[in-house]
Amino acid sequence: MSKTLAGNAVIGQSGGPTAVINQSLVGCIEGLRGCDAIGRILGAHHAVRGMVENDFIDLTDVPQDRLDRIANTPSSALGSSRDKPDEAYCQKIFERFAENDVRYFFYIGGNDSSDTARIVNETARKEGYELRAFHIPKTIDNDLECNDHTPGFPSAAKFVAQALMGDQLDNAALPGIKIDVIMGRHAGFLTAASMMARTRDGDGPHLIYVPEVAFDLGRFAADVDRVYSQRGRCIVAVSEGIHDVEGTPIATKLAGNVERDAHGNVQLSGTGALGDHLAAHVKDCLGAKLRVRADTFGYLQRSFAGCVSEVDQREARAAGRKAAELAVEGEEHGSIAIVRTSDDPYSAELQRIELTDVAAKTRTLPTDVIIDGCDIDPSYRRYFKPLLGGLPAIEQF
Amino acid sequence: MSKTLAGNAVIGQSGGPTAVINQSLVGCIEGLRGCDAIGRILGAHHAVRGMVENDFIDLTDVPQDRLDRIANTPSSALGSSRDKPDEAYCQKIFERFAENDVRYFFYIGGNDSSDTARIVNETARKEGYELRAFHIPKTIDNDLECNDHTPGFPSAAKFVAQALMGDQLDNAALPGIKIDVIMGRHAGFLTAASMMARTRDGDGPHLIYVPEVAFDLGRFAADVDRVYSQRGRCIVAVSEGIHDVEGTPIATKLAGNVERDAHGNVQLSGTGALGDHLAAHVKDCLGAKLRVRADTFGYLQRSFAGCVSEVDQREARAAGRKAAELAVEGEEHGSIAIVRTSDDPYSAELQRIELTDVAAKTRTLPTDVIIDGCDIDPSYRRYFKPLLGGLPAIEQF
Repeated sequence: MSKTLAGNAVIGQSGGPTAVINQSLVGCIEGLRGCDAIGRILGAHHAVRGMVENDFIDLTDVPQDRLDRIANTPSSALGSSRDKPDEAYCQKIFERFAENDVRYFFYIGGNDSSDTARIVNETARKEGYELRAFHIPKTIDNDLECNDHTPGFPSAAKFVAQALMGDQLDNAALPGIKIDVIMGRHAGFLTAASMMARTRDGDGPHLIYVPEVAFDLGRFAADVDRVYSQRGRCIVAVSEGIHDVEGTPIATKLAGNVERDAHGNVQLSGTGALGDHLAAHVKDCLGAKLRVRADTFGYLQRSFAGCVSEVDQREARAAGRKAAELAVEGEEHGSIAIVRTSDDPYSAELQRIELTDVAAKTRTLPTDVIIDGCDIDPSYRRYFKPLLGGLPAIEQF
Repeated sequence: MSKTLAGNAVIGQSGGPTAVINQSLVGCIEGLRGCDAIGRILGAHHAVRGMVENDFIDLTDVPQDRLDRIANTPSSALGSSRDKPDEAYCQKIFERFAENDVRYFFYIGGNDSSDTARIVNETARKEGYELRAFHIPKTIDNDLECNDHTPGFPSAAKFVAQALMGDQLDNAALPGIKIDVIMGRHAGFLTAASMMARTRDGDGPHLIYVPEVAFDLGRFAADVDRVYSQRGRCIVAVSEGIHDVEGTPIATKLAGNVERDAHGNVQLSGTGALGDHLAAHVKDCLGAKLRVRADTFGYLQRSFAGCVSEVDQREARAAGRKAAELAVEGEEHGSIAIVRTSDDPYSAELQRIELTDVAAKTRTLPTDVIIDGCDIDPSYRRYFKPLLGGLPAIEQF
């Protein structure tokens, strides 16, 4: 602790891109630049893959104005990867780290990525290689333990809210049943944020389904029928990760040839299958003549250029800077957590936590905010409100 | 011509909503308000359906600040309809118009809607009913004859450009093959606007397919293979309306139970089927292990809250006002066309055209800007640039 460790630094960006992951990259660079002990600041091209292939982008002397433009650009400027390093993979990483005199390692990502940072850190200790290893949080799923919320989530939630604001007005103009499929494998935070689209009584989404509770196709059709009978329209927000009572994802049940990534995750995004199936199910149950439509928001949620939360930008930058500062000050490893201290006026602080506190763990939506399995308690708006910031003004006759 | 006609006015909004259709509504109200001959200004609730069911919203005294907020709200504030009036339907409309002393009729919509305005106008003349009937252009498809572009298109095109800007960065970070399905049944303007996402050489979309040329599944796989082999990634923008050499939409070929609206149009939006089929086709041809994803932008393109072109807002408002002014000045019928007079600096003027100039006709993308059936000539950026206005700044390593 606190002794000076001379060497180079490597920063990587892993997992799914977000609107603000480059803010964390730039914050980390800024936090390292003031330290004489740091030699070169290297960006790993495509995350762990760049580390093993010795494919680095030298970030040491990138001018500040260019860094500022990078910070404001969505998606991962260094490139990303979904590789999950095993011991052999980590062995190669260390050979490259040794070759490049890397003593500082920062990995920006979600729970899979924090687990990678944990493995790399533990392998370093086992090998007697002195390394400071930090995870910097990032995930639109908002599912990291110990965090009030995670960088990337507020911007994605703002996209979802703005999409539903427009879509529920569209549905009011041309009434029918509309199903919007929103990202979220295990955590329903992003889908729940659709509630922020409501500006007055009767506004959609009228039904919200999250993966925290079991989804039943029969119950779903009955819910839609009830809302449609009452309002002449129904707009549904549903997580891609909804599953039945046995825990089998509804999307998996439908897919003939299920694709899995290196982490064993089934492909949920980049396909409209779940939405189309739910729409067909509603028609089967309630009538083929009904106007039923489904949209799957897909990758637009995480990287749409020009839809970003200012709080998210600021916090993502600060989280990157905080990790760098802790490492420079002598902390050997850890992750950064955002802890909210007040709703209104909003305030939050950044705290160091252990890598093992977040690694490979999944935080989910508090179940007490889920109403009857098909809505979110209105009081939960207080959670989302400061994160999203200003939303477009809506006026209706 | 020019004689004063006393009576009430009805305004309707038809077809698919847009981000600026309420600008045209408010512009029309503003254009009518100065005229003493106009009694009540009535908004037809759900378009022609409201007209036959005597379901009107009184707009005469809505305060200006509320009108301004309505103008800035996406989707159709009066509600819309896809009904296509036949003679019996029109007969009912006239009974209601007579009951309500309606002498001014404004219908905001696309080519189906301009045809409705034409039928209503011709029936009025046949029935000896003195009516001033105007069509106010609106369609994200940009497919109205005599118009350089149509209100609603620039904002939808801006959404498509911003979506592709983010998505092509996402695809650069996690390389693979990505297919984005964009609205456009017969006209490829909106899909072509995806070219504006490119900020430097190598940026996607790498392939652009529009309905103006026949689409061949074999040729498509070969195009993707060529780009993917060269760049290690490939991002495709494709119109929902692509069809084979016989003119059969690719989406129709796939659908078991094809749904049609009252105009005989096949359902293309509100389903991810086309994108999923194209993705499966690429895997079949190029390898099941490839990372292939598809997103269908769906209704977000036309009503996403918070993504709007300023030129579009201004022109949509002006088009509504122009129609009202022409009617008040004594013109009996017509439509409004936007005619561009200069690219840079951009300027355009509004002209009166005949209803028969636009009714039920479809303008398509000039075929000479389509390169090899799979791209758009870079020089065509000059067409889109002033319409979209400022786009988010992008910086890449």
